[in-house]
Amino acid sequence: MFGARIPIVQAPMAGVQGAALCAAVCQAGGVGSLPAAMMTLDQLAGEITAVRAQTDAPFNVNFFAHRTPQEDADRTARWLARLRPYYEEAGLDPAALPKGPGRAPFDEAACRLVEELKPPIVSFHFGLPDEAMLARVRASGARIWGCATTVAEARWLDAHGVDAIIAQGAEAGGHRGMFLSDDIDAQPGLFALTPQVVDATRVPVIAAGGVADGRGVAAALALGAKAVQIGTAYLLSPQATTSPLHRAALKAARDDATRMTNLYTGRPARGALTRFMQEVGPMNADAPAFPLATGFSAPLRAAAEARGSSDFSPLWSGQAAALASETDAGILTQRLWRDAQIVMRALSEAGAPA
Amino acid sequence: MFGARIPIVQAPMAGVQGAALCAAVCQAGGVGSLPAAMMTLDQLAGEITAVRAQTDAPFNVNFFAHRTPQEDADRTARWLARLRPYYEEAGLDPAALPKGPGRAPFDEAACRLVEELKPPIVSFHFGLPDEAMLARVRASGARIWGCATTVAEARWLDAHGVDAIIAQGAEAGGHRGMFLSDDIDAQPGLFALTPQVVDATRVPVIAAGGVADGRGVAAALALGAKAVQIGTAYLLSPQATTSPLHRAALKAARDDATRMTNLYTGRPARGALTRFMQEVGPMNADAPAFPLATGFSAPLRAAAEARGSSDFSPLWSGQAAALASETDAGILTQRLWRDAQIVMRALSEAGAPA
Repeated sequence: MFGARIPIVQAPMAGVQGAALCAAVCQAGGVGSLPAAMMTLDQLAGEITAVRAQTDAPFNVNFFAHRTPQEDADRTARWLARLRPYYEEAGLDPAALPKGPGRAPFDEAACRLVEELKPPIVSFHFGLPDEAMLARVRASGARIWGCATTVAEARWLDAHGVDAIIAQGAEAGGHRGMFLSDDIDAQPGLFALTPQVVDATRVPVIAAGGVADGRGVAAALALGAKAVQIGTAYLLSPQATTSPLHRAALKAARDDATRMTNLYTGRPARGALTRFMQEVGPMNADAPAFPLATGFSAPLRAAAEARGSSDFSPLWSGQAAALASETDAGILTQRLWRDAQIVMRALSEAGAPA
Repeated sequence: MFGARIPIVQAPMAGVQGAALCAAVCQAGGVGSLPAAMMTLDQLAGEITAVRAQTDAPFNVNFFAHRTPQEDADRTARWLARLRPYYEEAGLDPAALPKGPGRAPFDEAACRLVEELKPPIVSFHFGLPDEAMLARVRASGARIWGCATTVAEARWLDAHGVDAIIAQGAEAGGHRGMFLSDDIDAQPGLFALTPQVVDATRVPVIAAGGVADGRGVAAALALGAKAVQIGTAYLLSPQATTSPLHRAALKAARDDATRMTNLYTGRPARGALTRFMQEVGPMNADAPAFPLATGFSAPLRAAAEARGSSDFSPLWSGQAAALASETDAGILTQRLWRDAQIVMRALSEAGAPA
């Protein structure tokens, strides 16, 4: 449907992957992705060039479509007070906090890069950029994908002219794409979300969240999705730059050991439970608005990781991380589809008239 | 697998159904259920007799396996203080609260009824009764099913010798079956839960939560389940005794309009958002332990319903209620399976080698 041989999209995962993972998935017949949010535009251009050097297949460049917030001084003060014991424990001076790695929104410069480099697919998280910029992306020739976590968001994306909708179930690791609501308790699971989004919209639906093996791929297609988007299952591949601490957490994953948390960046995201999340959250209303909270958590993370601890690391992970294995991303892509085909053929026998 | 022609189990739903719904599903080829928790044992015996008068097919009797809690005077006082404005608004004297409809746990008398009436399948919610009673149920000839909301609970049930495990995803309406944890934020969605439970246990898995049409049935089988359990989709059938207010809420259902709440009974359960849940919860640590909270909420519900309001009604509903329709339960059962077969046959074409 997207010019790919295999209906599997590798989820863009900012900070843990680049061209190597994207290209491996493309070469295997799926759709690889590049996450722009934590790259400079020069870096992103280099990654796009690197992907194109390895494959002619379509790939996806993902941008965050948030608006940069105003800092709220009172909230910042409350947050600093809450985190002070951790800064002291780490030997960090909160008055001298280095600005942590932020997340770049899709802006004029990013839009120009899209116009210049013309990635075949451009996807957005946290809604869409404004109409004028969206029109420029469309005019570049890119297919535009948006992410919906509810039927209301899916209808909104459909009305704004996206070419496909990623239906992100509550099981998904990493940042929730939610943009019309901030109530994480209202977020539907993929089983309920997928068919309702399919029924409510006119464009192909890509199911995401908790899909980590061939059974999940087949199940998503049964629910009416045209493709799946898979993230966590790729985090243990050699092509991902997942840190050793993050890999260790994924290898110890349990179905019930992740939580949604806003502590790391200011927006809800799902990851393995850490000391930071247990003691301060996992959700805390004083965490500065996305992406400002990153500047406060990143130094704690760096200090902890330097002594081998993941107490303050965002260990992004979906609820099916236990199904992941250390497999080459290209081999994994082909195995996911081969296993899905086996499941689908077996189901056809169950589907024969009794 | 359970002696039924169709791998669909009608979920037991205390307070909104009895023999009529159970028998209709059995006659159509599925497995009907009777919910014991809100019936006297005499009522339950009558319902079992009524089912047997209508069908020879296997059916399921569901019991709650909780232990009756000690009342916590401080918590009760806090709860009364929190609810006082609502009692005043309703013209109720909190000192004269009638004891509301409780929920009966599986006990000696219930065990004797099972031994006497020998229902073919006995299922338990909230864990299992003690070993001695479980052995008596097993000796009665009944197949025993337990409900797991996590892999840990599934392993526990498997170790305790159940014959099948209901994997209840976070999407499910009504009471969470959880018994090894009370953290609702840790509850996995069905997409992630089902394959992990299948991999972790030796017995057949019945997938529950967010399954409301043939797509969902096919998807659950793709994930490795041997059957599905469906509740909400039956609530609009004429055989259910769902109240008009509850039916109205289901007809207006949205994917993102349910929450887990402990306000009504003391245990987390999923239902459509109400004024009570918005103002007091949806989760509140002061709500008395299950099932004691029922006595405090039931009079408010009765008073509100008497004036046509569902502000205090438990409108139990899963996240896929919008897929439900007003259909005869027998016809619905057959349609669910026929539609699932169509989906599965279509998938087999997608599953053919490319």
